[in-house]
Amino acid sequence: MRATVIHGPGDIRVEDVDYPTVLRPTDVVVRVSAACVCGSDLWPYRGVRPTKEPRAIGHEFVGVVESVGAEVSALAEGDFVIAPFVGSCGKCPQCRNGVTVACDHLVSWGSVDEHGDYVQGAQGQAVRVPQAEATLRKVDDVSLPDAGLTASLLTLSDVMGTGHHAAVSAQAGPGRSVVVVGDGAVGLCGVLAAKRLGAERIIAMSRHADRQALAREFGATDIVAERGDDGVARVRELLGGVLADSVLECVGTKESMAQALRSTRPGGNLGYVGVPAGGAELPISYLFSTNITVAGGMAPVHTYIPELLADVLSGKINPGRVFDSVMPLEQAAAAYQAMDERRAIKVLLTP
Amino acid sequence: MRATVIHGPGDIRVEDVDYPTVLRPTDVVVRVSAACVCGSDLWPYRGVRPTKEPRAIGHEFVGVVESVGAEVSALAEGDFVIAPFVGSCGKCPQCRNGVTVACDHLVSWGSVDEHGDYVQGAQGQAVRVPQAEATLRKVDDVSLPDAGLTASLLTLSDVMGTGHHAAVSAQAGPGRSVVVVGDGAVGLCGVLAAKRLGAERIIAMSRHADRQALAREFGATDIVAERGDDGVARVRELLGGVLADSVLECVGTKESMAQALRSTRPGGNLGYVGVPAGGAELPISYLFSTNITVAGGMAPVHTYIPELLADVLSGKINPGRVFDSVMPLEQAAAAYQAMDERRAIKVLLTP
Repeated sequence: MRATVIHGPGDIRVEDVDYPTVLRPTDVVVRVSAACVCGSDLWPYRGVRPTKEPRAIGHEFVGVVESVGAEVSALAEGDFVIAPFVGSCGKCPQCRNGVTVACDHLVSWGSVDEHGDYVQGAQGQAVRVPQAEATLRKVDDVSLPDAGLTASLLTLSDVMGTGHHAAVSAQAGPGRSVVVVGDGAVGLCGVLAAKRLGAERIIAMSRHADRQALAREFGATDIVAERGDDGVARVRELLGGVLADSVLECVGTKESMAQALRSTRPGGNLGYVGVPAGGAELPISYLFSTNITVAGGMAPVHTYIPELLADVLSGKINPGRVFDSVMPLEQAAAAYQAMDERRAIKVLLTP
Repeated sequence: MRATVIHGPGDIRVEDVDYPTVLRPTDVVVRVSAACVCGSDLWPYRGVRPTKEPRAIGHEFVGVVESVGAEVSALAEGDFVIAPFVGSCGKCPQCRNGVTVACDHLVSWGSVDEHGDYVQGAQGQAVRVPQAEATLRKVDDVSLPDAGLTASLLTLSDVMGTGHHAAVSAQAGPGRSVVVVGDGAVGLCGVLAAKRLGAERIIAMSRHADRQALAREFGATDIVAERGDDGVARVRELLGGVLADSVLECVGTKESMAQALRSTRPGGNLGYVGVPAGGAELPISYLFSTNITVAGGMAPVHTYIPELLADVLSGKINPGRVFDSVMPLEQAAAAYQAMDERRAIKVLLTP
């Protein structure tokens, strides 16, 4: 089959690799219907994170169950499934607490499982899923979703669940003012999540017209293009002299974390989901004197899928709108380039 | 009058200073009934924080209103009052949000107010209180509390409110396991607060027999004397293989913060109130992967006093038990020495 492999900074190739098979009775193999490129995939692409040796890449996919292991009963051939961006066991204390991303038996796509067996990356034609019943979320009554629904279902693999985690962690909701730092797919989903949770005043920080437009479509009431001191001043002005109750940090850099912290009112809530890209410090003395609560981290999207899925299926939310570009898998390199150059918000890949 | 002045590391003196008077119509002067030495007073005493010039010290006091400014109507001569460890205006957005410690017009004892006028330290015979109606909490129906009640009321000035803030910030409550790092007065009050909030399993980390005994009296179900890796292992063992849901960090050092973080389960809540004494870092990557929520900071004790006061007056809690030593104000230097050498948990000073 064909699958995407990163060889080093800027070097994305689509190559021939072995088609996966069921190795253990708890495995299933999923034929990928749609995958995509994540903002965090750009860290190795840009060389911010090292790539020691060529490896399969991609961690977001939806698809159709193709074969099942002998002990799998909750999934069957033909089921349409959403794969969270990591696999989890469903049985350890962390999974039972809903913190599936801290699972004692975590599985990363494009890596090896705890038995040392290879697990395919998501940007390919098929993936072997260990601990499949615990990891995958089946979409009931849907066998072949159309392109629009497929796109929205795919966001539940990562970005919509992650934006939701930021919003929940920041306690966005009725009566609370919200600022979203970051206008990538996660930040935009954060706007949508805050709106869905009942926030009425949502300020999106963005300098790109296309993203500003989508932020407004998702529920942003105000756009702030300024950054740094000017951005903080503008937020304060918009909110009548105070800072925001809930701030969503959806980037992961030192600058975005500082922007987020300084946009949060004393006693307010910062929800961060940007993968820390070095230097995204939390200054303890500032937190101490301001009583800002910091929550978030890697989003337990598996836990969130049921409630978000219901709203996707009912048409209440349409997070698939973050995909402003669709390309065949073979053009994965061009997809990375488009996202790196910010010509695309998020690219959907069709295998 | 007599008041305590710090001249430098280890150099505490009780000196003659001017008796305060009402300077503004919103001031009152309080005759101090009881004051005390705080763990955070030990930072300048030990030279961890510099003392550039001699200054009045102490920030916890209760006492009797002695004179009132012309615009003060909610307080009258003879009222018994509790002074939070900082003064606040009651009108700014922060005060209205209950985050009085981030007040736009904050007053620190032993400093100057926003008009540049001197404000006495708490470890003395009297204090001028600016913004008095907003700052002080009157104790209704109490004019001359006995020694035991006075001690408990005095804890509402700081340590009981601070322990409560740690417990609230860590979401201690029914069904949640609790670890308290720090066996000073704040840590012990944290145990009491967690118990009061309904936690059933409370593990106090302490190596001192007297503090262990008081922790048990306050509601600790288990004592862990080990620290570092051994301490974490012991917590995990006591909790049946998992870490704690709620961890209270009540010290402020790098070591205690690390101990607290490593005692918190993924997805758990860390409430910290220890004044950061340099290096109490929050490692963002660890927080990101564990989804630990960090809340707390300087406690808005003014906000908490009403509910805690009700329980003190009803006899439900007796936080004054943290005072294991009472000394006359003239012996302030000995009080600091006793706390520095950990011969006393907390010393109450009678002016």
